[in-house]
Amino acid sequence: MAPQLESFFKKVDELAESFIDRLRHAVAIPSVSADPERREEVVRMGRFLASELEALGAEVHQRPLGRQRGIDLDLPPVVIARYGHDKAKRTILVYGHYDVQPALREDGWTTPPFELTIDDEGRMFGRGSTDDKGPVLGWLNAIQAHQQIGLELPVNILFCFEGMEEYGSEGLEEFIKAETDQFFKDTDVVCISDNYWLSTGKPCLTYGLRGCNYYSLVISGPSQDLHSGVFGGAAQEPMTDLIHVLGRLVDTDGQILIPGIKEMVAPLTNEEKALYDGIDYTMDDLYESLGSRTSAFPDPTRTLMARWRYPALSLHGIEGAFSATGAKTVIPAKVTGKFSMRTVPDMTNVNELVFQYVRDEFAKLNSKNTLDVYCQHEGKWWITSPGHWNFTAASKAVTAVFGVKPDMTREGGSLPIVTTFANVMDKNVLLLPMGRSTDAAHSINEKLDRRNFIEGTKLLGAYLHYAAEEPLVEASEHHHRQDGKEVKKSGGRSAHNVPKILHL
Amino acid sequence: MAPQLESFFKKVDELAESFIDRLRHAVAIPSVSADPERREEVVRMGRFLASELEALGAEVHQRPLGRQRGIDLDLPPVVIARYGHDKAKRTILVYGHYDVQPALREDGWTTPPFELTIDDEGRMFGRGSTDDKGPVLGWLNAIQAHQQIGLELPVNILFCFEGMEEYGSEGLEEFIKAETDQFFKDTDVVCISDNYWLSTGKPCLTYGLRGCNYYSLVISGPSQDLHSGVFGGAAQEPMTDLIHVLGRLVDTDGQILIPGIKEMVAPLTNEEKALYDGIDYTMDDLYESLGSRTSAFPDPTRTLMARWRYPALSLHGIEGAFSATGAKTVIPAKVTGKFSMRTVPDMTNVNELVFQYVRDEFAKLNSKNTLDVYCQHEGKWWITSPGHWNFTAASKAVTAVFGVKPDMTREGGSLPIVTTFANVMDKNVLLLPMGRSTDAAHSINEKLDRRNFIEGTKLLGAYLHYAAEEPLVEASEHHHRQDGKEVKKSGGRSAHNVPKILHL
Repeated sequence: MAPQLESFFKKVDELAESFIDRLRHAVAIPSVSADPERREEVVRMGRFLASELEALGAEVHQRPLGRQRGIDLDLPPVVIARYGHDKAKRTILVYGHYDVQPALREDGWTTPPFELTIDDEGRMFGRGSTDDKGPVLGWLNAIQAHQQIGLELPVNILFCFEGMEEYGSEGLEEFIKAETDQFFKDTDVVCISDNYWLSTGKPCLTYGLRGCNYYSLVISGPSQDLHSGVFGGAAQEPMTDLIHVLGRLVDTDGQILIPGIKEMVAPLTNEEKALYDGIDYTMDDLYESLGSRTSAFPDPTRTLMARWRYPALSLHGIEGAFSATGAKTVIPAKVTGKFSMRTVPDMTNVNELVFQYVRDEFAKLNSKNTLDVYCQHEGKWWITSPGHWNFTAASKAVTAVFGVKPDMTREGGSLPIVTTFANVMDKNVLLLPMGRSTDAAHSINEKLDRRNFIEGTKLLGAYLHYAAEEPLVEASEHHHRQDGKEVKKSGGRSAHNVPKILHL
Repeated sequence: MAPQLESFFKKVDELAESFIDRLRHAVAIPSVSADPERREEVVRMGRFLASELEALGAEVHQRPLGRQRGIDLDLPPVVIARYGHDKAKRTILVYGHYDVQPALREDGWTTPPFELTIDDEGRMFGRGSTDDKGPVLGWLNAIQAHQQIGLELPVNILFCFEGMEEYGSEGLEEFIKAETDQFFKDTDVVCISDNYWLSTGKPCLTYGLRGCNYYSLVISGPSQDLHSGVFGGAAQEPMTDLIHVLGRLVDTDGQILIPGIKEMVAPLTNEEKALYDGIDYTMDDLYESLGSRTSAFPDPTRTLMARWRYPALSLHGIEGAFSATGAKTVIPAKVTGKFSMRTVPDMTNVNELVFQYVRDEFAKLNSKNTLDVYCQHEGKWWITSPGHWNFTAASKAVTAVFGVKPDMTREGGSLPIVTTFANVMDKNVLLLPMGRSTDAAHSINEKLDRRNFIEGTKLLGAYLHYAAEEPLVEASEHHHRQDGKEVKKSGGRSAHNVPKILHL
């Protein structure tokens, strides 16, 4: 470890209480983006962030995104900032968000959600503590600690902090597109701290996300709902047809029954398989998070692969049918089954396969009812090379702070912002989480552990140092990429950043 | 036709406007039993009915039923009355109800729902016009017309008018049980005018109803809803299991796939088949009521049989899954499928077959999730002999008033009150509808045609005359039943009144 990191770490420890005060101040601003009545609080949080960045000497702009769709309200501004402008240094684009999920005490919070409350175990409860105010402030903390020990940052940082992440990031993709060759033009790599460790004890770096295609399968028959006493047996019922078609999509073990899907999944190589060795995850971890033992697989590796690198199809529910408690003898006239498929490399043209299969299965029913099927929204999968210098730098930072090598993980869910940065800017994106798996982001009693916040601040700072020093060539692929940039996978489908090392 | 009927019919025509005024008065009382705030109006409607009966010279009682379950409110009284007490005459027990379904102008009514409004075609719009105030007042009209021509009724009438029919008839079964050997002890047969013609032009008599067993099929796995991104593929999903089991209950053509159900259905005899000949019903009637051509069968007879004499299984919906518009990537932790089976003679022990089949099919899935299945409520099927003198009397009355023989019909839905009278009192029950198929009971713009009200009044009066004269022996079964009473079918299962003639 470089000597300058030691004094940086020491300073972070010294400043810990003031960092926690900064987080306390941020949590106290209820910047709930989903609630139009709280929009002014979101804007206030943006202003707080801007003023903190300015106090550190950054060049800060609050960029308007225009009106929100459908309501008479301005979107909160994107807070962008530049810290350092040295052409000789690498430039890291840091993304985060300053809005939070809704939270009401009566939802079941044991402490006031907008009041940072620290318990005996150092758990700091409060909405936004881990998602994403703690990580966002971690960057500011790291800069502050550097300034106080008189140590210059070895990289330039560009900040992009948005205020609508929890409500769809409206307008952000267009903004990033517009700024790619403007404010963000010096970007070498992107770093996002907005996900979580896989476990409670071991840090991780995240190199892939599944995509998500969400479908509506509509079957309609009569022009209005019918009484099952009067018409049961005499009319073909849309619900019966829908249940039959939905039942042919996936089996109890999660195997997708749509031909052609499995065949597109990138084969598991030995190199990729090796990434799963030693990952800090047990079946008990799964059982604990499920609250049951209803796993699809008996071992942790196959379980993680099922979450990360294999597709899944979930049946979410039915719109238009009876869904309340009690009993209603209705024959619904029009029912919409909702299901989604989590997509993975190298799946492509998934919608066509789904539509054709659904139509074929419905045709087999020989029903007089009418079928419609469409994709409500599509989020693309993302994968990047964990051998890129952005990752090796972060890995060294983890070792420097926590004394372990990080787990190399993927996520089963999608993070649209990641795909946006990867696709629009064509840069390597590193997900460098600060919080733990148990932080309850989006739930009641969200928390960030004091240790994760303080050591996480060290981690972000250390990462900047290693990122400055890391050689451009990738260890396992130096003959292919001299410039440190990723190359598009042949075919370049879906405009994903898909380096050749992808199947590691 | 007997001469005294001619003068009765003439008097009914003369009094038509005053009868319509009586209905207008009744419709103006918003006796909505579902709405606690309108309870006083229900009680007021009961008082109005009692005073009208008293004005006709009946012995009237308003019997309390105690408190309503779950709320601090008295149930409306049952209005019972006796008109005539001649031991030499037969006694007809007449049931009806004086409460109505909710109705709000803004639901889409084109006229004020509690203001009887008559259009150019003689359609009398108003909540309760056809269900059931028109028929109830029809009995009073018939008595009044008799009195005005100085003609004595040839039967005694016992009235039982309740005020909670549209909200579950709470307390009525116990009341009927208690009065069977008391106030109702002279009852020979029961007549209920609370259903509808099969079509718009031809009267019918109704001799059967399907039962309804309503099931909940619960599948649970994790202890709370999961995110499909994080857990999709790694956990066994209760929705997948539920959809698979629901999909094995019934096929697109409405065939129930549970072994043993079909086998219990009473075989169709030639005699029963003959009852379907000439029934006023076409496929266009079905298509019009469906608003589509999505029928299960191409011909009207098979369609009517599917509604009346064959079982049906409808999938109503799912509780616990995502049911709103839009998209939610949830893996529901616990889902409850709701389905019901319409039961018919001679089905018995249906629940056991359903439970066993569901458990077997779930077991085949080899899932780690947990299954529970139970019957939410069970309404028994009912069938009586259309050869009973109660029916032949009504048939002659139809011919006297309308000049046609009535269709002999059944209903696909259940009318719990019918089963109550049939089972508790063990008397023949005749359903003698006044309104048409298009009357929109329970819907917006409920109406009763002026013709149905006035000719229906004649029908009820004429029925009383033929009921007085009809020989006790049944045409097709005189050797079995000398006393005019029905005998229980061997085995007496479910305590239904099941005469041997049942399979006619």
